[in-house]
Amino acid sequence: MLSDDGAMSEFDDAIASTGPDDDGAYLGHLTDDWGIGEAVNGGLLMALAARATGAASQAGAGHRDALSFSAVFLSPGGPGDIVVHPTLLRTGRSMTSAQAVVTQRVEGVEVERFRALLTLGDLDRYAEPARKTATAPRMPDVAACISAENAPAGFSKSGLLQRLDMRLDPETVGWAMGAPSGKGEMRGWQRMADGREPDALALLLALDAFPPVVFDLGSHGWAPTIEFTGYVRAHPAPGWLQVRTHTDHVQGGLFNEDCQIWDSTGALVAQSRQLGSARFPNA
Amino acid sequence: MLSDDGAMSEFDDAIASTGPDDDGAYLGHLTDDWGIGEAVNGGLLMALAARATGAASQAGAGHRDALSFSAVFLSPGGPGDIVVHPTLLRTGRSMTSAQAVVTQRVEGVEVERFRALLTLGDLDRYAEPARKTATAPRMPDVAACISAENAPAGFSKSGLLQRLDMRLDPETVGWAMGAPSGKGEMRGWQRMADGREPDALALLLALDAFPPVVFDLGSHGWAPTIEFTGYVRAHPAPGWLQVRTHTDHVQGGLFNEDCQIWDSTGALVAQSRQLGSARFPNA
Repeated sequence: MLSDDGAMSEFDDAIASTGPDDDGAYLGHLTDDWGIGEAVNGGLLMALAARATGAASQAGAGHRDALSFSAVFLSPGGPGDIVVHPTLLRTGRSMTSAQAVVTQRVEGVEVERFRALLTLGDLDRYAEPARKTATAPRMPDVAACISAENAPAGFSKSGLLQRLDMRLDPETVGWAMGAPSGKGEMRGWQRMADGREPDALALLLALDAFPPVVFDLGSHGWAPTIEFTGYVRAHPAPGWLQVRTHTDHVQGGLFNEDCQIWDSTGALVAQSRQLGSARFPNA
Repeated sequence: MLSDDGAMSEFDDAIASTGPDDDGAYLGHLTDDWGIGEAVNGGLLMALAARATGAASQAGAGHRDALSFSAVFLSPGGPGDIVVHPTLLRTGRSMTSAQAVVTQRVEGVEVERFRALLTLGDLDRYAEPARKTATAPRMPDVAACISAENAPAGFSKSGLLQRLDMRLDPETVGWAMGAPSGKGEMRGWQRMADGREPDALALLLALDAFPPVVFDLGSHGWAPTIEFTGYVRAHPAPGWLQVRTHTDHVQGGLFNEDCQIWDSTGALVAQSRQLGSARFPNA
């Protein structure tokens, strides 16, 4: 196990991997505990890949924290073994560039799930006060926001919704009652259900955990990620994460989803943008 | 030459490549015509790589237009031969995923300049009216904006500034006179100096052509791109491109730069975000 801090949280268990093997690969295992529909949440896969790649980088005298993580998604990951193949591209004084190819074996054939390019560094190096930043949006307290516990009777919570405690601003949850706001925005709070505090790896999960922002424009169903790029800007403080997602262009069934995350001190700690594909009724 | 439309513009010449060779690679050639400081503009390199990768994709029954382009930059490109090594990762019905490794030979050694992940498709497929979009910012007409021609006597225009006609909104050009606005934003117009109209490849150049947005916060000098992800959302109409860049988080010398581009009809046609590194006086 990579973990050296004795952490036994659900998230740490899920993103653990053993390695490197003789080919330099790291072996993890996915369960449907983090499922969403038939697939395993993409953010969990990214955190697993970032952890293994950071370990490979450190073993090669490189850096550990994923400052940037860009991925193209080739096929959805499912429960079972998963292999991360890291390649270090360049190790500099302050940053290491790396690639991660992530595969699963399906009926004897190795299938690529996604491929990522990472910039790894030491987040402590960038911890000075921000020179400019975006402030967190105003929204109701956690207790006044809407969680999956408020869903109608008969709603079946996915694995992901059991692992993450998400609370959406009532103003941006109309879509769940068939009345999307049409603004293309969601706001809310997020933390691990088992109380595990956020860190740089958990931010990669958090950036891709909210419902697709196009639900707020009337889209339903699966909205697969085509490309995702996330930047982790600082170690988050303990406590709830405040999350805002929005889209500024939806055309031909493609949309961008931008996400910003602030920690409990109000510091912006992560940003992402993804290109997704969505279906709309009567389209 | 890849070009089959007889185009002889400076841009088409600069991004042309021959290939594939026996290893599937495409050979291009960089000059300092597109230089900025000691390096060749990163946007030009991306357009060259996207063109070669699109050609490789088409040759493999895949798609041509880069819908998404994500790259990590490993070392700055300079004048001389440049080689694009495309790999097709997955060819689906509507999209092809690919990787491009871009290298130059330096003193007999092949050095990687950057590595990119691309999603290729057919932009015509997404041409229906936008369901939601961000409107272009209000700014003065082209004639009322500031070009490099307005620079003080003695200012030496880089190759890039001779190839591209850029006009900045007077409100966002104070930094050039030592009075940055402190807002972290630039707005302006852009087109090829030789009149070549924009297309999907030219948008990749346009997304990375403006001065670093942190100049508007008092930063000087080179602000190298660490990671860049651009999305091309539509074929641009002929005419001037309207460009807005801004940053929402600058900390520890790292900044995000977001760019949006609208065409002459007011349609949002491209978006990007990059993570850059900048120096500030007295920091």
